[in-house]
Amino acid sequence: MSNSYDSGRLDLPFVGIATFGKRPYQPDWSALDADIAILGAPFDFGTQWRSGARFGPRAVREASTLFSFGHAGAYDHEDDAIYLPGSVKIVDMGDADIVHTDTEKSHANIETGVRAALAAKALPVVIGGDHSINIPCLRAFDDQGAIHVVQIDAHLDFVDERHGVRHGHGNPMRRAAEHGYVTGLTQIGIRNVSSTAREGYEDARAMGSDILSVRQARALGPAATITRIPMGARVYVTIDIDAFCPSIAPGTGTPSHGGFLYYDVLEMLQDLAKRHEIVGVDLVEVAPDYDPTGSTAILAAQILLNFLGFIFHERQK
Amino acid sequence: MSNSYDSGRLDLPFVGIATFGKRPYQPDWSALDADIAILGAPFDFGTQWRSGARFGPRAVREASTLFSFGHAGAYDHEDDAIYLPGSVKIVDMGDADIVHTDTEKSHANIETGVRAALAAKALPVVIGGDHSINIPCLRAFDDQGAIHVVQIDAHLDFVDERHGVRHGHGNPMRRAAEHGYVTGLTQIGIRNVSSTAREGYEDARAMGSDILSVRQARALGPAATITRIPMGARVYVTIDIDAFCPSIAPGTGTPSHGGFLYYDVLEMLQDLAKRHEIVGVDLVEVAPDYDPTGSTAILAAQILLNFLGFIFHERQK
Amino acid sequence: MSNSYDSGRLDLPFVGIATFGKRPYQPDWSALDADIAILGAPFDFGTQWRSGARFGPRAVREASTLFSFGHAGAYDHEDDAIYLPGSVKIVDMGDADIVHTDTEKSHANIETGVRAALAAKALPVVIGGDHSINIPCLRAFDDQGAIHVVQIDAHLDFVDERHGVRHGHGNPMRRAAEHGYVTGLTQIGIRNVSSTAREGYEDARAMGSDILSVRQARALGPAATITRIPMGARVYVTIDIDAFCPSIAPGTGTPSHGGFLYYDVLEMLQDLAKRHEIVGVDLVEVAPDYDPTGSTAILAAQILLNFLGFIFHERQK
Amino acid sequence: MSNSYDSGRLDLPFVGIATFGKRPYQPDWSALDADIAILGAPFDFGTQWRSGARFGPRAVREASTLFSFGHAGAYDHEDDAIYLPGSVKIVDMGDADIVHTDTEKSHANIETGVRAALAAKALPVVIGGDHSINIPCLRAFDDQGAIHVVQIDAHLDFVDERHGVRHGHGNPMRRAAEHGYVTGLTQIGIRNVSSTAREGYEDARAMGSDILSVRQARALGPAATITRIPMGARVYVTIDIDAFCPSIAPGTGTPSHGGFLYYDVLEMLQDLAKRHEIVGVDLVEVAPDYDPTGSTAILAAQILLNFLGFIFHERQK
Amino acid sequence: MSNSYDSGRLDLPFVGIATFGKRPYQPDWSALDADIAILGAPFDFGTQWRSGARFGPRAVREASTLFSFGHAGAYDHEDDAIYLPGSVKIVDMGDADIVHTDTEKSHANIETGVRAALAAKALPVVIGGDHSINIPCLRAFDDQGAIHVVQIDAHLDFVDERHGVRHGHGNPMRRAAEHGYVTGLTQIGIRNVSSTAREGYEDARAMGSDILSVRQARALGPAATITRIPMGARVYVTIDIDAFCPSIAPGTGTPSHGGFLYYDVLEMLQDLAKRHEIVGVDLVEVAPDYDPTGSTAILAAQILLNFLGFIFHERQK
Amino acid sequence: MSNSYDSGRLDLPFVGIATFGKRPYQPDWSALDADIAILGAPFDFGTQWRSGARFGPRAVREASTLFSFGHAGAYDHEDDAIYLPGSVKIVDMGDADIVHTDTEKSHANIETGVRAALAAKALPVVIGGDHSINIPCLRAFDDQGAIHVVQIDAHLDFVDERHGVRHGHGNPMRRAAEHGYVTGLTQIGIRNVSSTAREGYEDARAMGSDILSVRQARALGPAATITRIPMGARVYVTIDIDAFCPSIAPGTGTPSHGGFLYYDVLEMLQDLAKRHEIVGVDLVEVAPDYDPTGSTAILAAQILLNFLGFIFHERQK
Repeated sequence: MSNSYDSGRLDLPFVGIATFGKRPYQPDWSALDADIAILGAPFDFGTQWRSGARFGPRAVREASTLFSFGHAGAYDHEDDAIYLPGSVKIVDMGDADIVHTDTEKSHANIETGVRAALAAKALPVVIGGDHSINIPCLRAFDDQGAIHVVQIDAHLDFVDERHGVRHGHGNPMRRAAEHGYVTGLTQIGIRNVSSTAREGYEDARAMGSDILSVRQARALGPAATITRIPMGARVYVTIDIDAFCPSIAPGTGTPSHGGFLYYDVLEMLQDLAKRHEIVGVDLVEVAPDYDPTGSTAILAAQILLNFLGFIFHERQK
Repeated sequence: MSNSYDSGRLDLPFVGIATFGKRPYQPDWSALDADIAILGAPFDFGTQWRSGARFGPRAVREASTLFSFGHAGAYDHEDDAIYLPGSVKIVDMGDADIVHTDTEKSHANIETGVRAALAAKALPVVIGGDHSINIPCLRAFDDQGAIHVVQIDAHLDFVDERHGVRHGHGNPMRRAAEHGYVTGLTQIGIRNVSSTAREGYEDARAMGSDILSVRQARALGPAATITRIPMGARVYVTIDIDAFCPSIAPGTGTPSHGGFLYYDVLEMLQDLAKRHEIVGVDLVEVAPDYDPTGSTAILAAQILLNFLGFIFHERQK
Repeated sequence: MSNSYDSGRLDLPFVGIATFGKRPYQPDWSALDADIAILGAPFDFGTQWRSGARFGPRAVREASTLFSFGHAGAYDHEDDAIYLPGSVKIVDMGDADIVHTDTEKSHANIETGVRAALAAKALPVVIGGDHSINIPCLRAFDDQGAIHVVQIDAHLDFVDERHGVRHGHGNPMRRAAEHGYVTGLTQIGIRNVSSTAREGYEDARAMGSDILSVRQARALGPAATITRIPMGARVYVTIDIDAFCPSIAPGTGTPSHGGFLYYDVLEMLQDLAKRHEIVGVDLVEVAPDYDPTGSTAILAAQILLNFLGFIFHERQK
Repeated sequence: MSNSYDSGRLDLPFVGIATFGKRPYQPDWSALDADIAILGAPFDFGTQWRSGARFGPRAVREASTLFSFGHAGAYDHEDDAIYLPGSVKIVDMGDADIVHTDTEKSHANIETGVRAALAAKALPVVIGGDHSINIPCLRAFDDQGAIHVVQIDAHLDFVDERHGVRHGHGNPMRRAAEHGYVTGLTQIGIRNVSSTAREGYEDARAMGSDILSVRQARALGPAATITRIPMGARVYVTIDIDAFCPSIAPGTGTPSHGGFLYYDVLEMLQDLAKRHEIVGVDLVEVAPDYDPTGSTAILAAQILLNFLGFIFHERQK
Repeated sequence: MSNSYDSGRLDLPFVGIATFGKRPYQPDWSALDADIAILGAPFDFGTQWRSGARFGPRAVREASTLFSFGHAGAYDHEDDAIYLPGSVKIVDMGDADIVHTDTEKSHANIETGVRAALAAKALPVVIGGDHSINIPCLRAFDDQGAIHVVQIDAHLDFVDERHGVRHGHGNPMRRAAEHGYVTGLTQIGIRNVSSTAREGYEDARAMGSDILSVRQARALGPAATITRIPMGARVYVTIDIDAFCPSIAPGTGTPSHGGFLYYDVLEMLQDLAKRHEIVGVDLVEVAPDYDPTGSTAILAAQILLNFLGFIFHERQK
Repeated sequence: MSNSYDSGRLDLPFVGIATFGKRPYQPDWSALDADIAILGAPFDFGTQWRSGARFGPRAVREASTLFSFGHAGAYDHEDDAIYLPGSVKIVDMGDADIVHTDTEKSHANIETGVRAALAAKALPVVIGGDHSINIPCLRAFDDQGAIHVVQIDAHLDFVDERHGVRHGHGNPMRRAAEHGYVTGLTQIGIRNVSSTAREGYEDARAMGSDILSVRQARALGPAATITRIPMGARVYVTIDIDAFCPSIAPGTGTPSHGGFLYYDVLEMLQDLAKRHEIVGVDLVEVAPDYDPTGSTAILAAQILLNFLGFIFHERQK
């Protein structure tokens, strides 16, 4: 396998336009030709404490350049594998159009983007924005067959309605559970106080959720945690960066101590990629204004790139 | 005049709960008894670049404690005057209730607060939040007689409608001009590119606006600038902190270089207080996440406290 | 149990005056009517490296609003319990009066506040300020019967006297051990170099201290660590935020690597609440200037709210 | 003139990939078709105090999106002009390839990029990087006829050689003066101590420099300052962001107090565009790590966009 | 004049131990042999809002290295002068010993340092620390003959006593005025609310102060301002960094908008150096925790180095 | 053992000139008389993403003062040992001279410093700077007999050559392996993507490297990890701060999640000191601009001081 170093440019991480992984930018969504389509969803009117996730897509793209040397693929010595070789085509779709003051229009534009990725047979990978952007993402799957949703998050996000709000960042998993094509949820990392009250937990369990705290997931271990997901399920994965410990992910709207460390999640995702078909991914709630060191955005980029590597390593076997 | 130091507590600025000016907090809006009623409006879904103005009210309250020594009033040696003596009653109403994802409900709650202040015969002083909160503030004046609006701002905020948006932070002055009881606008500090295009300027002038840039206002001087406002007009003042130079007000959503310095605005406000009845005030777009030194919030507090001092110095003459 | 959402306001975390947990502010200390009384002690002249803990009370109050949704109580799905329901009355006393340049007067004012809380039969919970504020806190217990002090901290704080200093943040545990009514100390998390030299450790042990490092406490586990405290002891708990790892608590005067992670301390406190009567709490050394992400203040608020939940969950059984 | 709002996307500033002004990215330098070609030169090994200008290009691009509403051109009400209408074609070339540890190779790659822009008959606009990147920029003009260099800067940058260094950020104006095709220099804003010693000033004057301090340029006024440049000269402009006062441009390697304010420079550049053909531009030394509020990058973007507007407003007359 | 570049080291600003101006460190105060003796006074228990001035000396030393190229002196092209040539001997005494919790001992140690500098016939230059450190500085002049104090500050600092406090940062000018050997004060830059109430101003004037606001000093101009100081007076200069506008000096405990810009003060100091013998200098209230860009510390270093240059330029004439 | 407290100064951590551990500064490298010689190597032109490690030496020195109370040695209660008593002589050599734009001259100056320390029979301890500074450090050992290199790092740094670069921060371990006197390498903490591609790993193993990831080293435990190093080997230790988890070491050029926590490394270093003669140490890649809380610099200082304590505790047995 040859490297781009051999001819042409060195392209150090700090050099060049910041698309995701420095991959090509394709603003024409009718012309997507890729295995993976990255879509930014810079919407944050759904937040309940700190906002700023609108700059999440730009921050994650910028951080992804740290891992974008001129290699043809990323060699992992622990797995003795090269992930994301040149044969895996990634394009950056840019961002869904956001309309300030208008949640419904903004969500509709995100849904349009995900539908475009699906229509092109690419894996849609959406970078938020707040967790409410999962609502339009999942709507776009209404013609994609049955899916199981795996949520990695600090908060249950299972509020039905409050003061008329049904599409804020405390509601997405409730909305997900209402879809006929969502056959179940696995909610991992849930801990401490949040906008969901006791009745939300009761509703979630009644509607088919499997809820695990960080300590519960750790006690099981990554492999046993993942085996709780029904065999054969096609899985949509939604990662709220606040699932992680604030020590590595402070840059988020509503941090919660006691979260996952890096390998906790990495190993669950690797197992998930091995056991299930992954049909869609979103990663939300990176708020760079609270991330002065860049640690949170780097984490998001590192987790996403590794997860995508794991998924396509399995697909190409 | 005796100071609280003589008995009781020293109450240094860094000590105590951060209400505005460390004045009493009155959450019961039916029981307001004050000359000045401070209302927070922590809404920021109307922003078009950086958000975070939702924490403006808390930041300005915190900064206001810097000027809250135990004095009975603030002595200004240049004017040889004591401003805001104990006889001027200020209460902090707390914040209007904000509903995430829902612009209209949030705006309605702000309007309710301003109406409560007006019903109590207090001067309403609203701390944003983004500039869209001026829209509900001015709605509350529909039964208060004719008013003239003085806007101090970098941006004209005169967009009519775009993609259905009429209540974002680029629209408030257009909405203001549409009210029958708004008899005119004076828009000061306007400069460089913004969301308002050429037609917005043309519309504004057609609807009765007097538009002055920073350089134009400086060339006139504060006194001559203020005399352009019709004699006898009862004035509502809306201050967007981005009217100021980013050198002293970096902590805002859409900074624009070339803005006003401190005395530019202070002297206009002092003249305004001397020549006109001030019926309402809002100060918007303080975004503390972009204000690591606190300079912007301190400016907001310092300008507000001085302006309120000037207003009531005239009233008590 | 009904929520405040059903009527009235949504009161999102970012909305409203920042008292502790958004609970009522009661500046009249002769009229306290509460189960828990929160007192700020913004004193930091006792620090030996970075100062700024004077803004600890405001920062912890602000952070506590993240956990202040309109719920009646906080549901914890791991414990299947609702903590701090409406029946537990919390009031915020505001801050003790601090006199700059004067350690003794400032300490005396803190002592006055704690005595007021005790007189009202409320649990005093004091937010520092530097660790020297524990000295006046414990003085206020001179008429409260025998107590055992549990310190969670990186540093032993057992310096007797140096250059005349006896009331700095390196001295409080030595001062505590000198009280006749302090029957013993358990000092947990102690590690690495600090202002206490070898002789301080020898003195501490001689005066009845049980000293455990982070590694020693972890090797025992939370339950066994807590069982070292004499059965039946009424316990005062002093938490120096630097007991925690700088990864989650960088915002403090003298960070020390190798500290506790979240569950280490949470589980010790839960065991402590189950086995002992808790008669007083202080949490010190949060210095927000070194906490750009808010992680440290959030940790302080999250630990305090959980600990108070555990204490009153036991009391109300 | 129609706006993109009328159909398609709203494209708020915070939405989308951050190319300069959200203009098209053209990585194929043999296919440039534009009036203006933006090139990033993320090189900072030439700095003598704080580094980090390597992230200048990305920061200026990101900041430029603040001014990138969907308008067809930017309306300036002071000039009653629309600048940079759709008829002015701008492309973003991305960055020159930088080779760590190797100054000469990195400089050569920058020179290649400027030559490509010139070959395409586009105005080359290079965003640094430190001021040493001006050296390869000017080398690329060796076949472009005689030029006059206008430098706006705090420092003279006229060191010949020291410890073998001839291509650091203290040397570019000396290197410029050595070119036969550089017929003169005007150095504006020069003040206080820098790496250039007295002999450097003497050399500069001997080699044809006109040196003006901030106070001297202000005393003359912008118009008279610009008229010192020989009539008819074709001008290359190099703007070191540290020419500006640290109040608005703190994010730079070697700030120097007493610098220019916004209109000082804006008005000089507007005069320059009116009186001279501008053949090339570079803007250097934006170091975003020292720019926590974004003020410096916003200034760079605002100045560049205005200057380009002025230049092409004249060309299209 | 030869430069150190010619042989030996390049010693770029970012290289080497951060003493003031990279001049020699002399911890043995009985062996001082210098024209200028720099003393750090890292005391900040006298502050009334934000603390952290204890790190002022280290920050100013670090910033001073920006101006510490290997030149033999700093050439100023506006004055065509080389300031601080090698013949002016500067030593860094390090810091006075500070005793936490103990204002009086700390102040005494500062006084000891200033007396040592005076005994060595060096000009004492003290870097604070909060403004209370001026109190021991001036005490050390009790055997130095009559002096006039010039204060450049936002605040009058003329509180006599409050809650027993007489040596806080609001008291030094009152303490100064009480000394028999202080024959008068000129207080420049005073504006807006501070801890000094109206009676403080009356007292100050009664005790011989000449008080000028920023606007008043600007209206006079630097030269006329300085000529108000009695001819022939030997002058001690105390500079509170908050005299400056927060735009360039945000990093201080109690910022006040409307302050001086760079040349305002520079030109006053240059005039002062020309007209008067300067017998001592302190510069206080640099608080680096509020100075994320370094602008404030750089300002302090730049002002001090220039002022010292002016003083010795006159002495060596 | 007597403390300096007994007479003289208290010398709190925040007081005084920031040399390493507040130990004496010895700029005359021909006069070194010490057990340990600290050398700063502020070179960062070898970085591939974020620069700024040039300020690493100053930041680590500043942080080291936190651990510099006036004790004669640091008592560790877990080991019941006093480390670094007064009998261990440490001097701070200051920094190697760095020449901007010139990698080779800068590296040569670092080599000169290390040779001076070795000539004085002191243990050379070099604080970077980026990891390329290890290249001149190891060159200086060409006359010191056979050594084994232990690298603690996230990245393998085993790139041979790319675009001509052989002395960047991705190359040092390859350069080390090429020396005849380097008999082997142990590379610990290596994980995820870096500039080294698959062939680099193959080369490393072929040239005698033992490569362990974080998870592999943790699975072994510190003791077993260290026993993989050949018995009797004289060891040079190079610590890249990015070996640590970004939770505690965000302040570095190329952070990588999944790194070591504090005790992981501390215990390896303690075992290493017990089993092997340590002949040299470098600690690199601390970049304070990305370390707003100081956590990274504190970690570097705390690890270095402990490691030096362990080394000389063994030597003095």
